[in-house]
Amino acid sequence: MSEGSRECWKQCCRTTAKRLPVLGWLPKYSLRWLQLDLVAGLTVGLTVVPQALAYAEVAGLPMQYGLYSSFMGCFIYCLLGTSKDVTLGPTAIMSLLVSSYAFHEPALAVLLTFLSGCIQLVMGLLQLGFILDFISHPVIKGFTSAAAVTIGFNQVKTLLGLHNIPQQFVLQVYYTFCRINETRAGDAILGVSCLTVLMVLQQMKKGIPRTHLLEVLPVRISRHIIWITATARNALVVLFAGLVAYAFQMTGSQPFSLTGTIPQGLPPLQPPPFSIIVSNHTLYFGEMVQAIGPGLAVVPLMGLLETVAIAKAFASQNNYQIDPNQELLAMGFTNLLGSFVSSYPVTGSFGRTAVNAQTGVCTPAGGLITGALVLLSLAYLTSLFYYIPKAALAAVIICAVAPMFDARIFRTLWQVKRLDLVPLCVTFFLCFWEVQYGIIAGVMVSGILLLYPVARPRIKVVMDEAIVIKPENGLQFPAIEFLRNIVHKQALSEPQQRSVILDCSHISSIDYTVVLGLSELLQEFQHQELRFIFTGLQAHVLEVLLAADLEGFRNFSTLNDAEKGLGELHIAIGGMLGDNSSVLTTTGIIQ
Amino acid sequence: MSEGSRECWKQCCRTTAKRLPVLGWLPKYSLRWLQLDLVAGLTVGLTVVPQALAYAEVAGLPMQYGLYSSFMGCFIYCLLGTSKDVTLGPTAIMSLLVSSYAFHEPALAVLLTFLSGCIQLVMGLLQLGFILDFISHPVIKGFTSAAAVTIGFNQVKTLLGLHNIPQQFVLQVYYTFCRINETRAGDAILGVSCLTVLMVLQQMKKGIPRTHLLEVLPVRISRHIIWITATARNALVVLFAGLVAYAFQMTGSQPFSLTGTIPQGLPPLQPPPFSIIVSNHTLYFGEMVQAIGPGLAVVPLMGLLETVAIAKAFASQNNYQIDPNQELLAMGFTNLLGSFVSSYPVTGSFGRTAVNAQTGVCTPAGGLITGALVLLSLAYLTSLFYYIPKAALAAVIICAVAPMFDARIFRTLWQVKRLDLVPLCVTFFLCFWEVQYGIIAGVMVSGILLLYPVARPRIKVVMDEAIVIKPENGLQFPAIEFLRNIVHKQALSEPQQRSVILDCSHISSIDYTVVLGLSELLQEFQHQELRFIFTGLQAHVLEVLLAADLEGFRNFSTLNDAEKGLGELHIAIGGMLGDNSSVLTTTGIIQ
Repeated sequence: MSEGSRECWKQCCRTTAKRLPVLGWLPKYSLRWLQLDLVAGLTVGLTVVPQALAYAEVAGLPMQYGLYSSFMGCFIYCLLGTSKDVTLGPTAIMSLLVSSYAFHEPALAVLLTFLSGCIQLVMGLLQLGFILDFISHPVIKGFTSAAAVTIGFNQVKTLLGLHNIPQQFVLQVYYTFCRINETRAGDAILGVSCLTVLMVLQQMKKGIPRTHLLEVLPVRISRHIIWITATARNALVVLFAGLVAYAFQMTGSQPFSLTGTIPQGLPPLQPPPFSIIVSNHTLYFGEMVQAIGPGLAVVPLMGLLETVAIAKAFASQNNYQIDPNQELLAMGFTNLLGSFVSSYPVTGSFGRTAVNAQTGVCTPAGGLITGALVLLSLAYLTSLFYYIPKAALAAVIICAVAPMFDARIFRTLWQVKRLDLVPLCVTFFLCFWEVQYGIIAGVMVSGILLLYPVARPRIKVVMDEAIVIKPENGLQFPAIEFLRNIVHKQALSEPQQRSVILDCSHISSIDYTVVLGLSELLQEFQHQELRFIFTGLQAHVLEVLLAADLEGFRNFSTLNDAEKGLGELHIAIGGMLGDNSSVLTTTGIIQ
Repeated sequence: MSEGSRECWKQCCRTTAKRLPVLGWLPKYSLRWLQLDLVAGLTVGLTVVPQALAYAEVAGLPMQYGLYSSFMGCFIYCLLGTSKDVTLGPTAIMSLLVSSYAFHEPALAVLLTFLSGCIQLVMGLLQLGFILDFISHPVIKGFTSAAAVTIGFNQVKTLLGLHNIPQQFVLQVYYTFCRINETRAGDAILGVSCLTVLMVLQQMKKGIPRTHLLEVLPVRISRHIIWITATARNALVVLFAGLVAYAFQMTGSQPFSLTGTIPQGLPPLQPPPFSIIVSNHTLYFGEMVQAIGPGLAVVPLMGLLETVAIAKAFASQNNYQIDPNQELLAMGFTNLLGSFVSSYPVTGSFGRTAVNAQTGVCTPAGGLITGALVLLSLAYLTSLFYYIPKAALAAVIICAVAPMFDARIFRTLWQVKRLDLVPLCVTFFLCFWEVQYGIIAGVMVSGILLLYPVARPRIKVVMDEAIVIKPENGLQFPAIEFLRNIVHKQALSEPQQRSVILDCSHISSIDYTVVLGLSELLQEFQHQELRFIFTGLQAHVLEVLLAADLEGFRNFSTLNDAEKGLGELHIAIGGMLGDNSSVLTTTGIIQ
């Protein structure tokens, strides 16, 4: 093999290893790892099944779609993921987004999955992961807190067994309180009990101290049982509620709203739908895309945001590095392939990732067990899901989203940096209207805060016979009107109009809007028969100005030259017009 | 009167004069001005009547709404406007926006007018006119060019008499070409003839040389006739087409699609509708606002953008200054009061403002004549509008929007500043999908271009026993991940892990996202039992970091102190751990 081809081969290997992180850990895989991954995979599996059913309800889709969405991520992430802890699958926030962009129509949700997958893949290949840098922490917090409130409150109606409550948040709050007296006793009692049990178990889990080797076996075993109970609490509560409902069903009365029939079996393997028939009218691809609209931007981006935020949190805790672009590829493939098994868009789940990490997962292989468990449930258990009371699932969701609401952030920001409360509050409140407006407005507000110094740069004005105006840190388009106003005020307003020298020595780049503004200034000065000249232009700024071919453009390399040149120009004009009053004494200017 | 109350009175007068620009010009009003304003007002009136009918069609509203929208602006702007040339009224772009946010429902359009008016008033009072600074020229050009194409092409189907063409642009192009063989001969012939006549007259007007006093009277008179014909071309063409249609109607056959019945009389004076009944279902205020959605942000902002852009262009040409916030107030009042006479949102019209300026208007009083002419048409002429062929109105619109499409901007930007082609193209192409996405995406892209130096600041790394990392122009949230990656690469990755000194002497402000990133870095260093210390903190940056109460935060005022301190810390840790390999020789660091 020649040197060149060996080099090429090495390069190839490196790229493959980078793109397939599984190649990094698989060769080192051990029996000990297998053991821990097995336990973690099972535990996550017991969490994901009830959550998947509940989140499908949030997304406004038939319950089986939750399960359809829960296994592909486990398998793909095992091959492509850079974090050992992250588990991809349906999440509360993504379900909320799906409910607002897919209009409770499974075909739209699956198409959204497919398109989101494609967009994420393209973003990953173009290395666009850096976009996340522009979403500041207050915006993320505002969004997640608002989502927690929306999703949590959305479940209150199910918890109380209320019907005919509108979707829109404000109306929902209003009507939920209006109809509170229509509460169904059975649902409410069961729901509140489940909620209480879940909260107690959650608190217990936090309170368990670490096992010490010195303790006697019974203590260690009982502690282990509590730990398992607390960790698998979702599955246990749902199971128990289902048993109660089943018992009532046997006695002939049913005080609970039940999940109802879920089609048994694995999802069909088929391409995503590119046209659907809605009430005798065929919607084609174009119209479906039109219907999804901004979802095509919001879903892929929020998916990335959630996954990367979670992956980074656990990477920092467990001391490894992740690569946002590789995460994009993993998630893109998951969504792309998921759309062939009727999945709705998935992303990293904070709750289940935490369970995974706490159970001590060693590699992404744990996901294989989780995925298998979901497939088994789909194949054999769906008939049992009939008896799951909806109120119990509502309790599961409320407990899952409650920690996402971070009330302390308001206090923290008040103490640390009050200005950051603005993007936080804008995002938080607008997210109740519509999620995408909240996020866009938040990003824009934090962008404006960043850009304030760009829009209102320091500009030094030196009054002399001519006025020397010097922007001190660059001149970009948001500042051009500001500069024009200063020039107008200082040089063009009555009573004394004067020529201007623009000292550009601190301008390192210039855009077309600025060029245009300067050209308009030049024209105004020509109208008034005054001069507007440039000095200290850096080479590539000068290039841009010359390319724009401005009328009456004059530049001098130094301020002294400019002042001298200005004097000569004035004499020339003065002579030409025969009007000596506008002639300046050159000596006075050059000093 | 005391000195204080006199001062207060003066201040009051100044504010009133600033808020009511009419007080500035009315006392100086002369007969000569009246004469010129009269001619200009009449000419603009002859342009606005046919345009108003045509734009109502673009907005998807009954034709009379165009006229209802055309007079309030004339009266209000006369009192509150800062530019003598600007005329407010229905415009092509605003009509396009209304058609996408009001869903062809007049009640929604009128409510949108009312709410836009309120928003513009509030923006004006809060002095938010500066927001315009963040919309760069390429974004504006991309938007107006795309709007010209959309609106122009939208009229092709009317020009050809085609039916059942969908609204969405891509589908519209597709179906227009598919059904080109269904063209109605009468409409097509009339439409193309009108278009040709309008274009010829437009060209003639450009070609008329200035009148010289030396020329003989007949030459001057004939030149004047040509000028009037060319200026009132819209009204003449529509009038002529109407006569032709009327003649055909008399003979019993009708080859043209006609405007049809327009209700006679002035619009009712009533508050805007806060609930409507659509197909037996009552829509309340909340749902109407929900339906309008992003229109509530886009319409007021685009209205402002259009008016200010036009006002600035003519202010610079005719040498006066305008105030964006006062324009906001004028437009806000116009829309607010307009909603009481069933107006849809209005803004400054480029075409009519140009006509106004060219006819030599002296004060905004010309608007009074225009407004009166519109009211007269509404009161007495609507029955005549029955015979106006739609194809003729389509020709009027195509001629009005054609100059808005600026193909040269692509070439200019290619020559002057290629990077600016990115926001231009993003805006241009996305505007065909939906206007608001185009503008938002364009603003975001130009924002990202502006923020690139903020997100990837120069960071100096000095390798020593410890690593000194120094951001050279600030550290704001988009840069924190970048900084963390550099720190990871330089200090935390194998084989040699080292402590870091962060030299903050060039950081003049810090936000919460940065604080959080630094706190995570601190934790990671503590995990590795390494140090991460700060130096050169400016007072208010230090204040923020202290308020955040970071775990393990250490700071030293100078780099020397930091290096000395770092050595001592290491010795302390080394001693504590009994591990001499991590002890650094202090002398080596202090140098």
